[in-house]
Amino acid sequence: MQKNPMRLSKSLFVTLREEPAEAEIPSHKLLLRAGYIRRIGSGLYAYLPLMWRVLTKVRQIVKEEMDATGAQECLLPQLQPAELWQQSGRWDTYTQAEGIMFAFTDRQKREVALGPTHEEVVTAVARDLIKSYRQLPQHLYQIQSKFRDEIRPRFGLMRGREFIMKDGYSFHADAESLKATYNDMHDAYCKMLTRCGLKYRAVDADSGAIGGSGSQEFMVLAAAGEDDVMFTADGEYAANVEKAVSLAPEAVASPFTSYEIKDTPNTNSIDKLVKFLECDRTSIVKNLIQQAVYDNGKTVLVLISIRSDREVNQVKLTNELVKLAPNYGAKTVIALEVPDGVAIDKWASKPLPLGYIAPDLSDEYIQSSPNVHPQFLRIVDETAASLTNFITGTNEPGKHVVGANWNTNFPIPAVKVDIQKALVGDRAIHDPTQVLETARGIEVGHIFQLGTKYSQAMGATFTNEQGEEQPLVMGCYGVGVSRLAQAAVEQSYDKDGIIWPVAIAPYHAIICVPNIADAQQMEVAERLYSELNQLGVETILDDRDERAGVKFKDADLIGIPFRIVTGRSLKDGKVEVVQRATKQSQDIAVENVGATIKDWIGN
Amino acid sequence: MQKNPMRLSKSLFVTLREEPAEAEIPSHKLLLRAGYIRRIGSGLYAYLPLMWRVLTKVRQIVKEEMDATGAQECLLPQLQPAELWQQSGRWDTYTQAEGIMFAFTDRQKREVALGPTHEEVVTAVARDLIKSYRQLPQHLYQIQSKFRDEIRPRFGLMRGREFIMKDGYSFHADAESLKATYNDMHDAYCKMLTRCGLKYRAVDADSGAIGGSGSQEFMVLAAAGEDDVMFTADGEYAANVEKAVSLAPEAVASPFTSYEIKDTPNTNSIDKLVKFLECDRTSIVKNLIQQAVYDNGKTVLVLISIRSDREVNQVKLTNELVKLAPNYGAKTVIALEVPDGVAIDKWASKPLPLGYIAPDLSDEYIQSSPNVHPQFLRIVDETAASLTNFITGTNEPGKHVVGANWNTNFPIPAVKVDIQKALVGDRAIHDPTQVLETARGIEVGHIFQLGTKYSQAMGATFTNEQGEEQPLVMGCYGVGVSRLAQAAVEQSYDKDGIIWPVAIAPYHAIICVPNIADAQQMEVAERLYSELNQLGVETILDDRDERAGVKFKDADLIGIPFRIVTGRSLKDGKVEVVQRATKQSQDIAVENVGATIKDWIGN
Repeated sequence: MQKNPMRLSKSLFVTLREEPAEAEIPSHKLLLRAGYIRRIGSGLYAYLPLMWRVLTKVRQIVKEEMDATGAQECLLPQLQPAELWQQSGRWDTYTQAEGIMFAFTDRQKREVALGPTHEEVVTAVARDLIKSYRQLPQHLYQIQSKFRDEIRPRFGLMRGREFIMKDGYSFHADAESLKATYNDMHDAYCKMLTRCGLKYRAVDADSGAIGGSGSQEFMVLAAAGEDDVMFTADGEYAANVEKAVSLAPEAVASPFTSYEIKDTPNTNSIDKLVKFLECDRTSIVKNLIQQAVYDNGKTVLVLISIRSDREVNQVKLTNELVKLAPNYGAKTVIALEVPDGVAIDKWASKPLPLGYIAPDLSDEYIQSSPNVHPQFLRIVDETAASLTNFITGTNEPGKHVVGANWNTNFPIPAVKVDIQKALVGDRAIHDPTQVLETARGIEVGHIFQLGTKYSQAMGATFTNEQGEEQPLVMGCYGVGVSRLAQAAVEQSYDKDGIIWPVAIAPYHAIICVPNIADAQQMEVAERLYSELNQLGVETILDDRDERAGVKFKDADLIGIPFRIVTGRSLKDGKVEVVQRATKQSQDIAVENVGATIKDWIGN
Repeated sequence: MQKNPMRLSKSLFVTLREEPAEAEIPSHKLLLRAGYIRRIGSGLYAYLPLMWRVLTKVRQIVKEEMDATGAQECLLPQLQPAELWQQSGRWDTYTQAEGIMFAFTDRQKREVALGPTHEEVVTAVARDLIKSYRQLPQHLYQIQSKFRDEIRPRFGLMRGREFIMKDGYSFHADAESLKATYNDMHDAYCKMLTRCGLKYRAVDADSGAIGGSGSQEFMVLAAAGEDDVMFTADGEYAANVEKAVSLAPEAVASPFTSYEIKDTPNTNSIDKLVKFLECDRTSIVKNLIQQAVYDNGKTVLVLISIRSDREVNQVKLTNELVKLAPNYGAKTVIALEVPDGVAIDKWASKPLPLGYIAPDLSDEYIQSSPNVHPQFLRIVDETAASLTNFITGTNEPGKHVVGANWNTNFPIPAVKVDIQKALVGDRAIHDPTQVLETARGIEVGHIFQLGTKYSQAMGATFTNEQGEEQPLVMGCYGVGVSRLAQAAVEQSYDKDGIIWPVAIAPYHAIICVPNIADAQQMEVAERLYSELNQLGVETILDDRDERAGVKFKDADLIGIPFRIVTGRSLKDGKVEVVQRATKQSQDIAVENVGATIKDWIGN
C-alpha cells in the first residue's frame, strides 16, 4: 500500500533553510521546514505527500489494532443536523457557551454543524439499528477529519481547526460489558502507540465535557506537551495532574492537645499564623470560600476546609459540584471561581472575617437574594477531615482556636471528599513507598466510559433479556491521528531535523547520489532504488542536481531512518549507510544493503 | 488491508424488508434495504461497515492507478479561507449566484467555506512551492469528503451534500505537458473503471463552471443515469449529449434552382411551409432569435440561421457566446434564452416578422437602449452554411424566398459554427458509416485541461527556461468515489438485490449455515471461514440464529458474489456454492472450496 517510491527530482519537495516565523514549538517548525505541511489558513494545514505517508501509516496501525478488537470501521457525515445535538442537549454548549463547533445554516435555513465529535450521530445510528440485547455489544469506529473553531489555533497540528481523529463508539447491555471493551481499548491503544515507536503513558483522566464515569488519556511524553502527567516509578500509577490522587505528607502531631481560643493578632495568612503559633502547616485547617454558578443561574457559595499545606484542585472540585447539581435544581456547573472583594460584596450581608474564617461560618453572612443559595455548601477535603487537635479560625479577626476536633468543636461537613491537588513528592495511594513524579505530555488518545448519558437523552434503547426497554450503555474512544504524528516529532528530533520512528517514517531509506553526473554513482543508486523498493524497503532516490551537502542536510531534516550514499566507498563495491537517529555510519557491500536494511526495519 | 472477517452474529447488520419510502431509484433503495447506508439528514449518509469496505476498495483501486502515473497523494483542508476564492474570482458565484458552497464566518468573524472542489487551495500551495520549470510537471491528488449545498439532494449518494471524491491537480510548463498528463489520466481512469468491474464510456464533455479547454467525462452506463451519452458502435466516438457533434443527414437537393420570392400565405411554421412548398425540411434555412445576457448586464440579441430539420444545442451556443464575450466588454454569459412575446416587446422597435424572418433581418428592429447591443449577433450553423438554392424567410409575412444562395442573396454571417444538437441516427464525424446511438449514464469522473485560468487569477507563476515568469498551466481530474460505488449498484442488480462486481464487493464470499444447532454444519462453516479468510478470500460467516431462507435472502440482498451453504451436500463431503450474478449452483468438495473461489476471484 505504501509502495510507490519517490524520485526527489520529480517530486514536489521543497525544504526551507529559515526558521518559519509562524511556529513556536520544535515539531511545528520542523514539519514546516522539512516540507511536510503548509499553512492554508489559521489552524488549517495542507498535508503534503511526505506528511500524508506518515499519516497513512499511523492510520493503518490504528486501523489494524481497532480491527483486531472486533471493532467495525464506518464513516459518519462530518456535516451534522442541529436536531441531533439538540436532542443530546449539547447544541447550546457547543455553539454558544464554548462556541467550539462551527455551526451555520444551509440554503433551506436549517441549522447544521461540522462535527468536532460524533456521539450524537452514532447514537442516532444505534437508535435506528439496535433493538435487542442479542445485537450487543457493538463497536463502530471511523478515521476522519474533525473540526473545532478554536479560540487560538496553535502549534501546527497540535491544536488546529481541522484535524484527523480516529473516534470509536461502543454499545453495551450493561456496565460490565462496557468495562470489558474499555479494557480492550486500553490495551489496543497501548499496542498502537508502542507500534508507532512512541514513549507514552496511559493516565487516569478527567472526563470533561464528554461526560461519563471512568476515562484515561494516552500521553506521548515530550517537553513541549501541554499537559502535566503525574506518575510513579514502578509504572503502577499515572494520571493527568487534573485528576491525580495522592497521599499528602503525614501531618505532624499538633502541639496543642486541648481546645482553646487564642489571640492571634495580625495572622490573616497561614505564613503569619505558623510563625506566630510556632506550629506546622499540617496542623492547621484553612477555610476558603469559592463561588459556583450552576447552569440554572443559581450561585452557590462553597466553604472549603482543607489542610493548610494543600491546595484545591479546581477540576476535582468542579466534578464534586456537578454531582451535587440536582440539589440545586441544576444539571451542571458553568463557572467556578475564588471571589475577590467586589464579588464578595455582591452577596455578603456583612464583612467576612477574612483570614480568620472557621469551618462553621454562619449562613447569616449570605444576603437574601433569589439568585444566591442561602446556605454555604460545606465541603471538607480528606486532608482536613482526618486531622485532630487542629488549629483553625474563629470567625473573629485576631483569634484562632487550637486543639480543635471535628464534631466536638465543629460539625464536620457532610461532603467529605478528595479535592486536593496532587504534588510532586506526594506518596502514591497504591503504595506509599512510591512517590509521585511529573512529566509533560501531549494527549493523543482518550478513552471514556460514557454510560447512558447520550442514549438516555436521545432515546437509544434496547430490549434486555427480561424484555425491558433500557438505554444503551456506551463507551467512546479517540485517537488524534494528525496530533500523534506531530507528537512523534516533538518526542524525537535533534538540531539537524526530525528523527522518525521507523514504523511511521514516510520512507525507510533515502539514497543520496553525491554527484549525479557520475555514471557509476547513478547506476548503483538506480539499482539499489529499484531493489530496495521491491524488497519492501520504502526508498527515496535523491537524484536532484544539488550539492552532496544539500542532499545530506535535507535527508537529516526530513528524518528518514537510513541514508545510503553512493559515494567514495563505491570503489570497494560498498555504499555508506548512515543511521539517522544515532548518526552511526558504516560501509556495506552493495549486494548486502537490501537485506541489511530490511532486517533493521524488521520487515 | 481488507482482511478482518465478519461474523454476522456479532456485527451491526440489519436489513429491511420494506421498500424505504425516501428512495426513488433502485440503487438507493437497495443500499438502504441491504444495510449499507443510513440517512442522517438531507443529503447526508452514514456509511455503515459493509459500505465502508466497498468505498475502501474503490479508494484503493483509485489510489493504485493514480500512484502508477506518478501522481502524489496529499490531503488539503476541507475548510477554506474566503480569500483564496476571492483571488480566483469564484467566491461570489459559489456562495451567491449558485450558492452551492457552504460558507460561514468563524469566531473571529473571518469568512470560510467548505470545499466543494480544491482548485484554489492547491493553486495556493503551488504558488508557494513551485518556482522553476525544473520542478515541473507536478501532480497532487487527494481522496476526501467534499461538500455541496445542493438545492435538492437526492438519489442517495448520487447527489448528496457530503460525498467522497478523488480530486487531482497537475501543474505544467506548457500545454503539451498538460496534454500528456491529461492523456495519462484518461488511461488511468479507464483502468480504474475497468478494474472496478463497470461498463462505462469516456465521453467528450462540456467544461462548465470549472473552466478550461478540453474535458472528458467518464459515464457508468445505467438506465437511471442523469446524463445522456451519444456514441458509435465502433467505440471510436462518445460524448455527452451537451457536447456531441455529428453529421446531419445529407440535404435533399432543393427543388428550386432559381431565386424567386414566393407568396406563401399562412406558412409561419416549418411544417406548414414544407406542406405548402412540397419540399424537404433540409432545403429550408430557419432563422431564430435568442437573447443572451452577459455578466456586464448587456443583452445581446442572437440571430441564428440553421437548417430547419435541426435544433440548436444551447450548451454549444453558450460556449460560442462566451468566446465572443470580449466583443461586448464582458467575461461570460449569465443567461441565454428564447425570448417570448413579452421579452421581445422590451427591445423590439416594431413587430417582428415572426415565422418569416430572413438571415438579414435589419438591426433597425432593435430599439436603442443602453442595456441592449444595437446589432444582431448573426450566427450560422454549419448545416445552414453549406446549403445552396435554399428556402428561407423574407422578413415579410406571407412571403418566402426559394433558390437562395449565401452571399448572392444574403451575406453569410461571420460567425459560422457547429451549434446543432446531435441526434440519434446522425452519422459520425470520424466515420460517416457509423451512426450515433444513445445511452443513459452516471457521471463518475471528469478530467479537465484547465489551462491558466486559476494560476493567472491567483498569481501562481514559475520561471521558464528562458527566465521569463509565466502562469502555471493546470489540469484537474476528479472521480466521485461514493457516487461510483452507488453507480455500480445501479448498473448491476436484480429483483433480489445487489450484484456487486467482485473487485469492489465488500466481501467475496458468505457462508450461510442453514441450522446453527447442527454441529457438523457449524464445524465445516467455521473451518471454511477460517481457511478462506486466510487464503485471501474475504468471507462473512452468517452464524445468526435465523431460518435458512432469511439467510439466503439477506445474502442475495447484500450481493456477495459467492454464497457457500453448509447444508445437505455435507453428507457427500461437499458444500453448495451459488454464484450471485448467475444464480448458478454447484456442489464442491469442502477441501476444494478455497482454491476454487480464490481462482474465481482472480486473487
